[in-house]
Amino acid sequence: MHSLRKRELAGHRSGFHESASSMKDEVGFDRTALLTDLYELTMMDAYYRLGMERTAVFEFYVRRLPEQRNFLVAAGLEQVLDYLEGLRFRPTEIEWLESTGKFSASFLQRLERFRFTGDVCAMREGSVFFENEPLLRVTAPLPEAQLVESRLINLLHYQTLVASKAARCRLAAPPDAQLVDFGMRRSHGAEAACLASRASYIAGFDATATVEAGRRFGIPVVGTMAHSYIQAHDREVDAFANFARCHPGNVTLLIDTYDTARAARSVVRLVRELRAEGIEVQAVRLDSGDLAAEARRVRAILDDGGCRHVRIMASGSLDEYAIAQLKAAEAPVDAFAVGTRLSVSTDVPDLDCAYKLHEYAGQPRRKRSQWKESWPGARQVYRQYDPHGRIGMDVIACATEALEGKAMLQEVMVHGRRMAPSPSLEQVRRHCREELATLQPEMSCLAKCGRSPVKISRSQHALVAELDRRAH
Amino acid sequence: MHSLRKRELAGHRSGFHESASSMKDEVGFDRTALLTDLYELTMMDAYYRLGMERTAVFEFYVRRLPEQRNFLVAAGLEQVLDYLEGLRFRPTEIEWLESTGKFSASFLQRLERFRFTGDVCAMREGSVFFENEPLLRVTAPLPEAQLVESRLINLLHYQTLVASKAARCRLAAPPDAQLVDFGMRRSHGAEAACLASRASYIAGFDATATVEAGRRFGIPVVGTMAHSYIQAHDREVDAFANFARCHPGNVTLLIDTYDTARAARSVVRLVRELRAEGIEVQAVRLDSGDLAAEARRVRAILDDGGCRHVRIMASGSLDEYAIAQLKAAEAPVDAFAVGTRLSVSTDVPDLDCAYKLHEYAGQPRRKRSQWKESWPGARQVYRQYDPHGRIGMDVIACATEALEGKAMLQEVMVHGRRMAPSPSLEQVRRHCREELATLQPEMSCLAKCGRSPVKISRSQHALVAELDRRAH
Repeated sequence: MHSLRKRELAGHRSGFHESASSMKDEVGFDRTALLTDLYELTMMDAYYRLGMERTAVFEFYVRRLPEQRNFLVAAGLEQVLDYLEGLRFRPTEIEWLESTGKFSASFLQRLERFRFTGDVCAMREGSVFFENEPLLRVTAPLPEAQLVESRLINLLHYQTLVASKAARCRLAAPPDAQLVDFGMRRSHGAEAACLASRASYIAGFDATATVEAGRRFGIPVVGTMAHSYIQAHDREVDAFANFARCHPGNVTLLIDTYDTARAARSVVRLVRELRAEGIEVQAVRLDSGDLAAEARRVRAILDDGGCRHVRIMASGSLDEYAIAQLKAAEAPVDAFAVGTRLSVSTDVPDLDCAYKLHEYAGQPRRKRSQWKESWPGARQVYRQYDPHGRIGMDVIACATEALEGKAMLQEVMVHGRRMAPSPSLEQVRRHCREELATLQPEMSCLAKCGRSPVKISRSQHALVAELDRRAH
Repeated sequence: MHSLRKRELAGHRSGFHESASSMKDEVGFDRTALLTDLYELTMMDAYYRLGMERTAVFEFYVRRLPEQRNFLVAAGLEQVLDYLEGLRFRPTEIEWLESTGKFSASFLQRLERFRFTGDVCAMREGSVFFENEPLLRVTAPLPEAQLVESRLINLLHYQTLVASKAARCRLAAPPDAQLVDFGMRRSHGAEAACLASRASYIAGFDATATVEAGRRFGIPVVGTMAHSYIQAHDREVDAFANFARCHPGNVTLLIDTYDTARAARSVVRLVRELRAEGIEVQAVRLDSGDLAAEARRVRAILDDGGCRHVRIMASGSLDEYAIAQLKAAEAPVDAFAVGTRLSVSTDVPDLDCAYKLHEYAGQPRRKRSQWKESWPGARQVYRQYDPHGRIGMDVIACATEALEGKAMLQEVMVHGRRMAPSPSLEQVRRHCREELATLQPEMSCLAKCGRSPVKISRSQHALVAELDRRAH
């Protein structure tokens, strides 16, 4: 390493000075192999030095469902496969690791040519799943399977969290209601903002307000206007008319800045005026107050004014519970914009998920930590349907067993490469819609349903008993 | 635009196919000007066409504190200034916007040379603040001040959320206890993982496990080992010894994989063995069960075995409440690793924050939406201390008023450039420590304290009354 480079690194470490210029050349947080926990790297270093490079099987699963969820929706596999295929250590990253003095020279050399070479089995994105069921299984040399733990959890956890929340919104809403993701601003950072759009689209949302999610994933992008836009005008009605004339194809007017009823009456007059110019007002948005009462009041004003075609969008602290209430109250809301409570999954902002070693060098392994015991060996989930095509039973079995039912985990990556092009986002979304239709009615309700469809196969039980016997 | 390019874009839009190769050349989610809500761009387009480019004043604040917080800690300003200084639209981004058909040609041309040219006043990072107080004020031509809304909220909200949570952990923990951020895996995406490390370090955490946060921000990085590492060995004690010999400078042994007491006794024997080789075991980690009881049991075993110097780290579902319980129980825990509940801020995963227009073209503006009314005009916070140096009263005043006390907002950016190099992260951290010392004792408790130090100045009240009179 050049001594100049060394000094720069040392300066960076000791000075702690941050500045825009030092950041500009960096890759994004989501593009670096150093987005991992330190222990993955120190364990990996140890594995290499100890010659522990035989095949390991790790599985990702959610230990138990939160009280407020009857099912979860798998999402994030696509980003995991991208991560595994693209995982490289850049020279500057390796130099930084060297500068910490925590790693052996031989380890750093191996990182230079590191590639993920393992296999992955996984449930399809958009699949419904339950507690303890493996979503994804990694089979790879131990150091590789270990390294990828932190980011793999980070990617699967968040999109699964949001897709599961979004699915509840979809199930709670009237079937023909439009659902839009407005969650960017309070989502936890840049990546969360964009991946929340993707996860919610998979689970049945129709569009997002986040432009980058539109560009990156092809999700329809929609938008209205902010209160600031209204306030910047001296007269609210001028703000409405100006916007409609600038964006004639896309007119959703925000009507709650000052006096909602008065604004609704302005809209009625404006609709006539604009029609003469060939411009249609598509919708109005309500963002505050008692949304059911306001929607009814506004609907009446619009209908009386001959504006039955103008739709009503509601926003402001919405989630599946609020949507269900508005639906129960038969509030005339045509579109629901769901923001923070979707992208943060406010009622359940994290899942009790894990990525655990199930087998090493051909031997099943099991953790027995109090309250956090894990099941051993590579596993498979067999889903059995009732005569109505609904989920009757999920049997978690040893991967080597062949049981009745649909095997939920399928091979998607071999030797570090995808086996086939990924399904399109539209295909994933369609799959999710089909999956939600297989839920038993009590499972698709918002209220907790006491039942779980998950059973453990006899062979799994026998394997646990055998391992525990051997350990004592 | 080339027709070839057009076809590619159209293909990208209609096909929705995602693949690793199409992602590789992309910049990260945190590096694109398209990380914004669509309406910021459509409003901006309208502002330009309407000639509404006079000066606007926007302020960022938290409307009300969550029930579980007595104060908040400002964080994220550094990333906001980076964003404002670096904001550019790349040609490919503009081409994509064009392909949506939603924007005027003149608007897209202006984006090519877009720069943020405004001024920013802000509270220093690490400052304590309360409901309704502006953390940051943007003064800029209306289209610029509008555009930056979504990302600015996104950046300030999350780091403030985590810094506020971390400060509570710091206040709850014994003063000499080490606090470590273990939150990466369940944080919401890549950026959240790294910015949580930064925000918690500001608020008094000592280190993080997230490697990229260490590299990017100079935060000390620490790590232990995973259960999988223990399980991959046939014998737990071999796993311990191997790790210590591979990483002699950094030995924290995870002892709860099978039987904690037995593992602690192994550690006692190993300490003697390793000492002969010149290797010291620094600590053991407990990650499951009743942590207070386990810590006491393990402390006794270590002490009886002459290992008083071996420290105990606790982890697993920790937060300020669990830390306070362990402290109250006098559990012999020397280091607390706080993960998910820190980086997700599980008890309060979002704040009711807003970025609102306060003035346009020299006229104060006020939103009167039900339950979401805003204060008008540019504001300042004057902090008055009691004789013990503690926060006595915060007066929110018109920015033009000169009141007693310390003015909390200071100018940090003029014409789109920082006025001075940013403080180092260490300086910010020191400032936060000093700020936490100015809290009244009942405010630094975990329990809700009924009092708020916030008062509104007479001039602010008069301005509201005047505006509401004019509106009617």
